[in-house]
Amino acid sequence: MANIIFYQLFEKESSTYTYLLGDQDTKEAVIIDPVRETMERDLKLLSELGLELKLILDTHVHADHITSSGLLRQKTKAPIGQSFAAGVKADLLLKDEQLLALGPLHIRCLQTPGHTNGCMSYAVDGMVFTGDALLIRGCGRTDFQEGSPDRLFHSVREKLFKLSDDTRIYPGHDYKGFTHSTIAEEKKYNPRLNLGISLSEFSSIMARLNLAYPQKIDEALPANLKLGLDS
Amino acid sequence: MANIIFYQLFEKESSTYTYLLGDQDTKEAVIIDPVRETMERDLKLLSELGLELKLILDTHVHADHITSSGLLRQKTKAPIGQSFAAGVKADLLLKDEQLLALGPLHIRCLQTPGHTNGCMSYAVDGMVFTGDALLIRGCGRTDFQEGSPDRLFHSVREKLFKLSDDTRIYPGHDYKGFTHSTIAEEKKYNPRLNLGISLSEFSSIMARLNLAYPQKIDEALPANLKLGLDS
Repeated sequence: MANIIFYQLFEKESSTYTYLLGDQDTKEAVIIDPVRETMERDLKLLSELGLELKLILDTHVHADHITSSGLLRQKTKAPIGQSFAAGVKADLLLKDEQLLALGPLHIRCLQTPGHTNGCMSYAVDGMVFTGDALLIRGCGRTDFQEGSPDRLFHSVREKLFKLSDDTRIYPGHDYKGFTHSTIAEEKKYNPRLNLGISLSEFSSIMARLNLAYPQKIDEALPANLKLGLDS
Repeated sequence: MANIIFYQLFEKESSTYTYLLGDQDTKEAVIIDPVRETMERDLKLLSELGLELKLILDTHVHADHITSSGLLRQKTKAPIGQSFAAGVKADLLLKDEQLLALGPLHIRCLQTPGHTNGCMSYAVDGMVFTGDALLIRGCGRTDFQEGSPDRLFHSVREKLFKLSDDTRIYPGHDYKGFTHSTIAEEKKYNPRLNLGISLSEFSSIMARLNLAYPQKIDEALPANLKLGLDS
């Protein structure tokens, strides 16, 4: 965490985390999963910190809130990056293992589908931003948006759990007040995905969740496919 | 942040932050401002991380939620520390500049009255836990519980703002989704307490706030004076 500026930000209604990363020297910044309701807060913070937004990333096409990525691009001219598999007209269609510059560091893109086809995690400087692929002691649902327990299990076990044990996990949401976890913790204590659980056990856990229809999905999905812009 | 274990935890109803600090080597831990509603979560996390609770700290007598300090002491035998000026029967009555051991580090107690008489901030390892004395772009109200704009102004300017500019501020609450700030940021951007504001300006800002009567104060104050225990 030597020279990196790092802010974790929360949107209370949808319990969404937005992340701001900046380089101390170049003052270049990247925002991950910005939310429409909190865009002005985020722009003000960027300005107060003297940071210039250089890249806007979404971890996936969200079903529970509307992204501010399109509006942020209008205001800052920063390009939007999202997985090539998300079906979104982003400026950068990101591929697995692609590297994105942040000052002297590189953000590593990790394709982690399963919650949606276009889920991308971003790893940098001992941290990984997992969106809804891996949550703290949980994971994103797999019953909407091309969800697939098979693919999610593979993404977590073969991609995220290959990161070093002390990597800090910063998820897309938390509903119990946790702000971060580590790979070691989730390998041990994630009740759905810890190392003692098999794919078939995971699939049956996910099949039995019986979750309610997502409240905002009918509004959020079409909006987010257009980067949160109305037209 | 070399060898310290650090978790920021959130209680959504009262927007309260609880902090867990631990030493990697000795596995000893300190909790700051634990909340009754989230005690089981916190105990489970301590257990999962293999930490032993050695000290329970409150930053002040809270008016908006009930502390779990008394219950935590029953369960863990860890002593409770609170400012000598809080009027609480804590085990350790803390004084200004007192040092509390956390593995090889020391937590420095900073008396920061003004929101209440018994407000204590805790500084360790480049971080300061300010309770309600200094919030991100704000501060605690001064119209209840022996509140005093004069004393709060002095506490922030003469105590907290004397910490190094890059000290990370972890507050007792946030209502806008911020998770931390720095001394440098608050010196510049705190709308009530930035370095351009005089004591008389601060006093008149605080006098004009017109805040509602605290919803939970009649329940929380008597409970917290008894460490959150019913009897």
